[in-house]
Amino acid sequence: MTHLNETHDVSLRSWVTSANTAETDFPLQNLPFGVFRRAGSHENFRGGVAIGEMILDLAAVHASGVLSGVAAQAAGACSASSLNAFMAMGSEAWSALRLALSRALRTGATAESALQACLVPQAQAEYAVPAHIGDYTDFYTSIYHATAVGRLFRPDNPLLPNYKWVPIGYHGRSSSIGVSGQEFVRPISQVLPPGSERPSVGPSKRLDYELELGVFIGTGNTRGSRISVTAADAHVFGLCLLNDWSARDVQAWEYQPLGPFLAKNFASTISPWIVTLEALAPYRVGWTRAAEDPQPLPYLTSAALQTEGALDVQLEVWLQTAKMNAQGDAGTRLSQSSFKHAYWTISQMVAHHTVNGCNLQSGDLLGTGTQSGPTPSEAGSMLELSAGGKQPIQLPNGETRTFLEDGDTVIMRGRCERAGAARIGFGEVRGTVLPAEQLV
Amino acid sequence: MTHLNETHDVSLRSWVTSANTAETDFPLQNLPFGVFRRAGSHENFRGGVAIGEMILDLAAVHASGVLSGVAAQAAGACSASSLNAFMAMGSEAWSALRLALSRALRTGATAESALQACLVPQAQAEYAVPAHIGDYTDFYTSIYHATAVGRLFRPDNPLLPNYKWVPIGYHGRSSSIGVSGQEFVRPISQVLPPGSERPSVGPSKRLDYELELGVFIGTGNTRGSRISVTAADAHVFGLCLLNDWSARDVQAWEYQPLGPFLAKNFASTISPWIVTLEALAPYRVGWTRAAEDPQPLPYLTSAALQTEGALDVQLEVWLQTAKMNAQGDAGTRLSQSSFKHAYWTISQMVAHHTVNGCNLQSGDLLGTGTQSGPTPSEAGSMLELSAGGKQPIQLPNGETRTFLEDGDTVIMRGRCERAGAARIGFGEVRGTVLPAEQLV
Repeated sequence: MTHLNETHDVSLRSWVTSANTAETDFPLQNLPFGVFRRAGSHENFRGGVAIGEMILDLAAVHASGVLSGVAAQAAGACSASSLNAFMAMGSEAWSALRLALSRALRTGATAESALQACLVPQAQAEYAVPAHIGDYTDFYTSIYHATAVGRLFRPDNPLLPNYKWVPIGYHGRSSSIGVSGQEFVRPISQVLPPGSERPSVGPSKRLDYELELGVFIGTGNTRGSRISVTAADAHVFGLCLLNDWSARDVQAWEYQPLGPFLAKNFASTISPWIVTLEALAPYRVGWTRAAEDPQPLPYLTSAALQTEGALDVQLEVWLQTAKMNAQGDAGTRLSQSSFKHAYWTISQMVAHHTVNGCNLQSGDLLGTGTQSGPTPSEAGSMLELSAGGKQPIQLPNGETRTFLEDGDTVIMRGRCERAGAARIGFGEVRGTVLPAEQLV
Repeated sequence: MTHLNETHDVSLRSWVTSANTAETDFPLQNLPFGVFRRAGSHENFRGGVAIGEMILDLAAVHASGVLSGVAAQAAGACSASSLNAFMAMGSEAWSALRLALSRALRTGATAESALQACLVPQAQAEYAVPAHIGDYTDFYTSIYHATAVGRLFRPDNPLLPNYKWVPIGYHGRSSSIGVSGQEFVRPISQVLPPGSERPSVGPSKRLDYELELGVFIGTGNTRGSRISVTAADAHVFGLCLLNDWSARDVQAWEYQPLGPFLAKNFASTISPWIVTLEALAPYRVGWTRAAEDPQPLPYLTSAALQTEGALDVQLEVWLQTAKMNAQGDAGTRLSQSSFKHAYWTISQMVAHHTVNGCNLQSGDLLGTGTQSGPTPSEAGSMLELSAGGKQPIQLPNGETRTFLEDGDTVIMRGRCERAGAARIGFGEVRGTVLPAEQLV
């Protein structure tokens, strides 16, 4: 693969010793970016990079003077309370800072003594949404999810004729996107009770999660221009975990003809760390379209797709109920899947989004849509796992679920692993359902 | 009406004499807010108020020291390049500044000599989008439009069962919203040609406008809280004109199941001036629901709706083709309608949007959806006027249209007029279609 460079070398070790363990999500080869401060402090939020169990404070690194040139400028941009300015600097600046940090954090680096003072333990940190998200777009790239959900909403017509041609997407709500740890009250809205012709208003009874990846746009395009499928990767800063909470009963009643609205916009939760596309390079895998399916239209095709179009990011969903939490039980895994199953790639999402001249901006977030895999146990939502609420999910402690209950915490994790490459982890995104606030 | 105050007095006259003509959109009783600078200059954009043919520069007013108290603070907030901070101050501050400006601009005001230097002719100004729009939501409040469009997309099922219960809305794209004068290239995307089973990619052949009002949120709500239908008006800063350009062929192919995406997000154009809800108070009219239709659910109902729930804003669409433009022809009127026909009110839009705890923010924009009236000549889109492209629209100069052609300029205007009240105008929003940029 042509994308690999010295930062991917599996033999690299860091003087931050917690980065050298087999199980860490954040070895020296990862270096994901986020925005943090010491929890409970009144410090300014600023950019940081996760390394083992620590955060390298990029404002402090910049002030320390150990970096020079473009890397120093990039660290300066990361000193702000959002990463937008850094993202806007472009892929050469992202790479330059990543390389400089990789070198400065290696065992034996002369910068160690200066950078020791720039470390903050992750256990002492709190996070912010890492960029100002101007627009949030959610795609629908899992054909398994689209088919399963389609079957529930439209039994006779599960997969619509456009699905295999169009990377279906729609605009979501950016104001209600929060960072891991987000809590939200169960949404109240209109639903059409089964068998009724008259809607009622009340707390959603079919509250669900959606297992997604989020894609942060680094550099955008001007309105009227487009980003080609071959150029797209250079515009992508990196990926995070995304839980696109969904109220299925609200969605079923409201979604025609203009799409989901109140069913989705009450909350969406992302992980604090953005794993750069560069860090994920060792996990690029070929993307193919089944021979019986239509091949993508020319603006969605490039030769590179077949060798490295997809990313093998392993994803999993855990549930910690209130009862589990009270008993010190960290939760139970509900499903696992991989982004490699996606029907559309990130580069196709970007190319499609801009083919009409729509302008993307630094910090925009694209959701991949729920990542369900080919088998039922790889479903990325409770709607699928419970067959539309008909088959309760049995939890190891004897509880059951068809949809989320108050007090439930959903935890999503992601990682890339294979022999011969460093493990690249995403950390986790967690969020908790609070009881509805009644209408007065 | 309890909303009226001295600023609405029809007998008020201004020392800005162009504000005293019968045909001005911007008499002393209006005082809409926008963001401007001298065209072609490198001045900072800053807030201003339209008065007759002039703009009162609020940064200059603030610097002049003629205002005091809350009004002075508000003018200070308006000195920025967007009105978000002013909007966030709340309705008392908006009213205080409006009242102070009304008094300072009246014939005989002692402030005249100081404020003369704060005037800039509108003919010398250029405008910016007046607020940073965090999220843009588009509603669908005209039942006439929903029925007419529904008939074209779903002949057997034009009006869906949820329409009379749910103020249908969806999230739109904020990055591509521009101010009057916006030009955009005809969007290219996938369409399914009639009779074909295989999509093709090319410039939209069914490019359309949509006649809407935009509603600027002044003060928002925190995530998890809601804004009641009775409290909603106090959160609304004001209204502008909105052209929500739409590519109908793209929309038809992509919109299921998640709603419009590339059909809408290439451009939306708003007028530079935001007419405050306070200025529109004399044009509140009663809102009723036909006896045969379901009455709105309790969270969408208030006693005030019946006496003053709607606004009688008269709207019209003009078309100036390239040929007209070359011949000095200002264009021809295609249709006219009124916002009073809307099936859902602004307060219902706000209450519905937040009933699930979704947070609105200062500067958010809500579109009303296309405002078609009850008769065919009141249609707010070309799709409707041309019966889905089947009946060409005859223009006075011999040209015809079914959809927009390259070089076409669409101009929308809005105004409130009745005996015993001052005319409150919106000015205009204009936008021009440029030829598509071919895919390379």
